[in-house]
Amino acid sequence: MTEPRTVVQQLVTANLILANEGVLDAFGHVSVRDPDQPNQFLLSTSKAPELVVAQDIISYGLDSEPVAPPTAALYAERYIHGEIYRARPDVLAICHHHSPAVLPFCVAGKPLVPVYQHGAMMGAHVPLWDSRDDFGDTNLLVVNSEQGASLARSLGDAKMVLMRHHGATVVGADLQELVFRAVTACKNAEFLYRALALGAVEGLTAGEVEKAARVPPMAMARAWQLWAGRVA
Amino acid sequence: MTEPRTVVQQLVTANLILANEGVLDAFGHVSVRDPDQPNQFLLSTSKAPELVVAQDIISYGLDSEPVAPPTAALYAERYIHGEIYRARPDVLAICHHHSPAVLPFCVAGKPLVPVYQHGAMMGAHVPLWDSRDDFGDTNLLVVNSEQGASLARSLGDAKMVLMRHHGATVVGADLQELVFRAVTACKNAEFLYRALALGAVEGLTAGEVEKAARVPPMAMARAWQLWAGRVA
Amino acid sequence: MTEPRTVVQQLVTANLILANEGVLDAFGHVSVRDPDQPNQFLLSTSKAPELVVAQDIISYGLDSEPVAPPTAALYAERYIHGEIYRARPDVLAICHHHSPAVLPFCVAGKPLVPVYQHGAMMGAHVPLWDSRDDFGDTNLLVVNSEQGASLARSLGDAKMVLMRHHGATVVGADLQELVFRAVTACKNAEFLYRALALGAVEGLTAGEVEKAARVPPMAMARAWQLWAGRVA
Amino acid sequence: MTEPRTVVQQLVTANLILANEGVLDAFGHVSVRDPDQPNQFLLSTSKAPELVVAQDIISYGLDSEPVAPPTAALYAERYIHGEIYRARPDVLAICHHHSPAVLPFCVAGKPLVPVYQHGAMMGAHVPLWDSRDDFGDTNLLVVNSEQGASLARSLGDAKMVLMRHHGATVVGADLQELVFRAVTACKNAEFLYRALALGAVEGLTAGEVEKAARVPPMAMARAWQLWAGRVA
Repeated sequence: MTEPRTVVQQLVTANLILANEGVLDAFGHVSVRDPDQPNQFLLSTSKAPELVVAQDIISYGLDSEPVAPPTAALYAERYIHGEIYRARPDVLAICHHHSPAVLPFCVAGKPLVPVYQHGAMMGAHVPLWDSRDDFGDTNLLVVNSEQGASLARSLGDAKMVLMRHHGATVVGADLQELVFRAVTACKNAEFLYRALALGAVEGLTAGEVEKAARVPPMAMARAWQLWAGRVA
Repeated sequence: MTEPRTVVQQLVTANLILANEGVLDAFGHVSVRDPDQPNQFLLSTSKAPELVVAQDIISYGLDSEPVAPPTAALYAERYIHGEIYRARPDVLAICHHHSPAVLPFCVAGKPLVPVYQHGAMMGAHVPLWDSRDDFGDTNLLVVNSEQGASLARSLGDAKMVLMRHHGATVVGADLQELVFRAVTACKNAEFLYRALALGAVEGLTAGEVEKAARVPPMAMARAWQLWAGRVA
Repeated sequence: MTEPRTVVQQLVTANLILANEGVLDAFGHVSVRDPDQPNQFLLSTSKAPELVVAQDIISYGLDSEPVAPPTAALYAERYIHGEIYRARPDVLAICHHHSPAVLPFCVAGKPLVPVYQHGAMMGAHVPLWDSRDDFGDTNLLVVNSEQGASLARSLGDAKMVLMRHHGATVVGADLQELVFRAVTACKNAEFLYRALALGAVEGLTAGEVEKAARVPPMAMARAWQLWAGRVA
Repeated sequence: MTEPRTVVQQLVTANLILANEGVLDAFGHVSVRDPDQPNQFLLSTSKAPELVVAQDIISYGLDSEPVAPPTAALYAERYIHGEIYRARPDVLAICHHHSPAVLPFCVAGKPLVPVYQHGAMMGAHVPLWDSRDDFGDTNLLVVNSEQGASLARSLGDAKMVLMRHHGATVVGADLQELVFRAVTACKNAEFLYRALALGAVEGLTAGEVEKAARVPPMAMARAWQLWAGRVA
């Protein structure tokens, strides 16, 4: 049986890394599926990720409601997590963010395509969810299961989904892969933004995306070591 | 009766947050209406916001003159505050700034429109005040009650006004809302600037702006906790 | 008689401020005319400005050669200083830099015009010196009196001169004014760069430049207090 | 005979400088030819450059395989180093990186030309290596001697080569020159990127590049002193 404390500690570190590397700010959140209870996931109560400590992490069911009565306020957008874990058994970790690198693409509706080796981890196609399609005018947030399920449908079997005028949601097979994908997708967005100012951009070929997306775990571990050291 | 020390301490923290989050630099200032004497407001004497301490905060009347004889130099642009408090009883806090995110819009005269959920707090329309309309060529500053009143008329019932070739002024229903609006308006300006480089930008719909502008106090408190912790 | 130590200490602080505020990097330098001997100026020996200490400051004549035999290497471009002090008796402080904010204008040959209140301190017109006009192909540096005199002619009675594919040189009536003008000119360059991406830019009017250029010494002192505190 | 410890310490410092000045991130690496055994070079085992210590540095032959059985994982792309040392006897130090300043040029395929004095150190022409020419679709990395040799052919007798959708590789006559060229090439890329947004860019003339490329060792030492002090 997995030592629960380890998962919680990893999730705290993921929160701190994603804040320190510029993916998360006062808002946004990161969760992990409970390794012992796949129908539950772990997520902080409502708090800026940069401030999250182990005591803030609690368990949620796939309905995105806390397993035990909570003693603190909850993230309004926790339904993103429950609905994606429900729809995607392969997903073991999720991050929702509003990174300055990615937001301009959500605003302009410009496709975010892979343009360098690690950017391939986003996949060849990053779908764009428009909350108006199913819900008309809203405050843009995902605040119930219906909206979470709509977002999960838009994500489909992709690795990342842009959310119109709002942000992005990224998934991973574990916390280390998730963090690596979230950070490198932001780098890719920055490179693409600048490359587009220089001229027409031809992205990676389909074959390159397929090959480059298989980043060796050792490479991801090297990055995690660096980023975790910065917040230790 | 409100404990005065609390308001003064909050105002000091607002100064430090706005400097640390890139809204204020050596210039710019933030004030709060006196909760016990609505015809007075609290504002530092002339000092860079990053350096303001409780002892620098003094009381001003709605004529923007100090209630007691001052022992330090005053901000030349304090008339911005008095005239807006006079014209807008609903306004309890004001920030005047020259953030690098917003200045390009003041220079190019490009409309600053909401393009993400928190940007909606600026309101659907951010007016632009052109000091030449009432005063011709000036040094661009607001240095007397006539100029302050002109700016207040341009602000109207909006939440923020751009000042041509100069900066911006933001208002709030309290210091926490003001700080949140000032910071997120700068983020919105940055996202819009970059999105415009990617292509045509369709902002939030009128319905989205109306709904998203109602940011829950708990969300603003989460951001204040983070930002205040960084300058504590 | 002026206390020499004060001037030297001010010059050290000017070096540190200009490095910390992003104007100077490993290269570039700042000097002050000797208040007691107007035909001499004070400048560090060859060292990154961020590392300059009082012991590095020595005296130079208007021929840009050290008054006493030097015990350390000298800046190759010290002729910029001697020739401008010779040509401009009103100039009491000089900074030569390669700030990232200004370089793009030196490369593109795009006019750097004032677009906000403090930018007016650059003056309505910032000339561009092209070293090819008098010297053909060089290594772009100013390494003798002839080149320094050519640059001084291009500066004329202006406050700042851009140097094609190289950097900029700024002058002031004292160190505090010089530092303020150098920093705010970089801010102006950044605002102009971004505003140009947003659309056509109409700069300040001639009347606005004239009025806004007269920044009160108290305002410059407020900025110096902030910036000096950051490097103390 | 050279004191080996000195070279190793210099290589550690080069790792730290290149990370701190924004050239290297979690990935990328820097090597030096062994001064005593020109058919060998020194390079860290697999680790983020910011974390490299002397104990991580080991010796490799020109086949890019470790001289002694390694006790740690190796950089997959070490073949870049061996093949360039084999092809270019004049090269004594190499850096492979993915700097955000340079990546947009690798993505857009826009020529990186010298536009300021230190940029001339890149040489008048920076070739672009396209891994598809010899290998078709790959994961974009250089993971064997054939790929390393192909890259070395593309480099030819140049000082730097861009790698399509991947990064750049820079060479030097010693570590100090290499570090200076790598950092200033990134600055040049940033200046060029911004200048292109301002208008048409005419780079340095051929004569200027030739003259400006001969940066005096004293100037490079001044920069090294500054940058090394920041990571000491």
